[in-house]
Amino acid sequence: MLHTPSDETIDRLESGLAALAEFRDPSRPGWTREVFSEPYRASREWTAKRMREAGLEVVVDNAGNIVGRLPGEDPSAPALVTGSHTDTVDGGGRFDGIVGVLGAIEAARELQQTGTRLGRDLLVVDFLGEESNAYGLSCLGSRAAARELAPEDLERTDYRGVRLGKAYADYGLDPSKLTEIPWARRRLHRFIELHIEQGPTLEKRGLPLGVVTAITGIERFIATFTGSADHAGTTSMEDRRDAMVAAAEAVLAVRSEGCGAPTHGVATSTRVESESRSPNVVPSLVRMYSEVRSVDEYWLSGVKGRLTGEILAKSAELGVDVGLDWSTDNHIVKADKGVQDVVASAADSLDIAWAPIPSGATHDAVHMASLAPMGMIFIPSKDGKSHCPEEWTDTADIEVGVGALVQTIKELDRL
Amino acid sequence: MLHTPSDETIDRLESGLAALAEFRDPSRPGWTREVFSEPYRASREWTAKRMREAGLEVVVDNAGNIVGRLPGEDPSAPALVTGSHTDTVDGGGRFDGIVGVLGAIEAARELQQTGTRLGRDLLVVDFLGEESNAYGLSCLGSRAAARELAPEDLERTDYRGVRLGKAYADYGLDPSKLTEIPWARRRLHRFIELHIEQGPTLEKRGLPLGVVTAITGIERFIATFTGSADHAGTTSMEDRRDAMVAAAEAVLAVRSEGCGAPTHGVATSTRVESESRSPNVVPSLVRMYSEVRSVDEYWLSGVKGRLTGEILAKSAELGVDVGLDWSTDNHIVKADKGVQDVVASAADSLDIAWAPIPSGATHDAVHMASLAPMGMIFIPSKDGKSHCPEEWTDTADIEVGVGALVQTIKELDRL
Repeated sequence: MLHTPSDETIDRLESGLAALAEFRDPSRPGWTREVFSEPYRASREWTAKRMREAGLEVVVDNAGNIVGRLPGEDPSAPALVTGSHTDTVDGGGRFDGIVGVLGAIEAARELQQTGTRLGRDLLVVDFLGEESNAYGLSCLGSRAAARELAPEDLERTDYRGVRLGKAYADYGLDPSKLTEIPWARRRLHRFIELHIEQGPTLEKRGLPLGVVTAITGIERFIATFTGSADHAGTTSMEDRRDAMVAAAEAVLAVRSEGCGAPTHGVATSTRVESESRSPNVVPSLVRMYSEVRSVDEYWLSGVKGRLTGEILAKSAELGVDVGLDWSTDNHIVKADKGVQDVVASAADSLDIAWAPIPSGATHDAVHMASLAPMGMIFIPSKDGKSHCPEEWTDTADIEVGVGALVQTIKELDRL
Repeated sequence: MLHTPSDETIDRLESGLAALAEFRDPSRPGWTREVFSEPYRASREWTAKRMREAGLEVVVDNAGNIVGRLPGEDPSAPALVTGSHTDTVDGGGRFDGIVGVLGAIEAARELQQTGTRLGRDLLVVDFLGEESNAYGLSCLGSRAAARELAPEDLERTDYRGVRLGKAYADYGLDPSKLTEIPWARRRLHRFIELHIEQGPTLEKRGLPLGVVTAITGIERFIATFTGSADHAGTTSMEDRRDAMVAAAEAVLAVRSEGCGAPTHGVATSTRVESESRSPNVVPSLVRMYSEVRSVDEYWLSGVKGRLTGEILAKSAELGVDVGLDWSTDNHIVKADKGVQDVVASAADSLDIAWAPIPSGATHDAVHMASLAPMGMIFIPSKDGKSHCPEEWTDTADIEVGVGALVQTIKELDRL
């Protein structure tokens, strides 16, 4: 039997999105609900309650993930896992992550209401703190589940000098037991995550659904430009070694590489910082923070070499020394081909138009991929906007996504 | 009788430079002696003492300027004024301003030792706080002398929120009486300032002396670029409105205008600030601080229009809004032609090679120009460096400068 969500499900999704949005930091713009904050803590009581109301057996694991279990016919079979997160970035929106948690809860409810008993357990997870945070470590809950959270990570500090380990402890979690997660240590069957696209591709192509092919790799670098702190009034243009000019050339080189990339390569300089405090000194020390992203391994490795070469050459022309410090923030993670096929077939069976699509953002699915074959379902984002108050996905699109999720769960269960 | 400084004068100049350099903030790099600081206060006791030892009658006026008077034959005749400043910028050097104060003291001493009685009073002034400071107002002492220090200027605050008026009061000066300066309210004859070039022109041309033709005009602007805060991973390059890219284009446009300027035009972007805190958001709000300087009125007014047009056009191409806020920091101030001629003739009579040279930095002379016909004498800066610990001028060059100053004073006295 094919499935589309009931009117009650849609109402609950809409009221749920509105209810969660109320848990926010009133001192910040947008819908701010950052990990470890009071609004976040309060919101998760609400989410756990919503899971219980949907007939799930709820536990909070040692990493702070809320896990709702819908028991299957054979509880010893590897469980099927779905879910996302409910924290938001500073000044963020109401859909990123949240749609995947509320949608999974409704999917579990629909399965019960339509009398569908899965062969195996379905675990609905609200992962702790997926977004970038003050400690510079995203996907806290899914990292812990995948045992990718190391003791040294807990030594990271926020801008006030508070250790991540202390933030966990203050939140009521034992920092020494974060990766002791029984559900994640069992063999798992598959992981499937419903999420908003956070980009404009589906909307532009008029498609309601995306089958995620891979999650972007992210290579970041910090470039440090060192020139000469000469007087800005008395030093002629040809005698200067201007670190800001070298940084500006580098910003344009980064953009140019992004513009020349294949479909899903992007390149961004997110910050330029000058040490100079004086209005009449040629900038001598400038730092620039940039990143390139792609799901194309070939391009992503090539662009590092090209950008390094271009920036070094242009800086040398300007007499400016430059040091580039590259680091890999995320490797490219491919979605499991089998899971992609199931999502595509579920969409086809529901007459939902879809396209394969890469993910330019990272997700909990990156870490879950090390525990089980992984897939993601994308639904459109209005104007491609995300991580801002204007983030929006129409209810009709969420309805399609939840319908596809229910159908995908049923088909994955049978694999 | 022509004049070159005696060996004793040279020794005193060298030991004076070394002694003043010791009055510095040990917590800061270089030779830091900022206005109102304790090292500055202590240094000025030393400077006043050095003036008295040189036979000058010393008063500290209501603006905090130290004024040493060498009485002339006719004390009622308009006085001839010379001097500079002894404060330094954060991380600054040992010569900027200081050479003009110590050199003037030695000039007064040499006049006495060689039995030269001037027809009029010679005033040797150590002007209070000439350098850029935390209140954003340079040339405090000469501004006050010229009545260009307004009551609203005293409301300016530093980064801790301290008012300039309070800083004056804490330093022991009455903020309500700063412009009540008897010596500056009399008619003055001429003003002549000896200073290091702070640029590389004299050194490059192998010339020991520069006759300053004009002091640069400074036009500054703050450009505010407003784009769209999109996700840096999911927003394609063509869908972006990246404020940082627009700012980078503007930095290069500023440089390009500077490079295309006539001999003494320069253009600098001293700071670029991004509001964004997140590493995965396209920068949406970037501020850029830039300035253009020239002694060429035609170029300086033209470049404002050209830069405004170029920055607006390039930003529009990128879909980025931009607001430009221009302000005139200094109008171009021309040196008096008669004073220039006297400096040139003094140099010629001493067989000192010289060239006319514009000043790319501002000086107390800018403000003194409103009280008397003004001129400046430049001596070389090693590698053109200034406002840094490496700032250097050879003793032999200082010797030439002081010799020229003495001769200039004698010739100006007779005008």
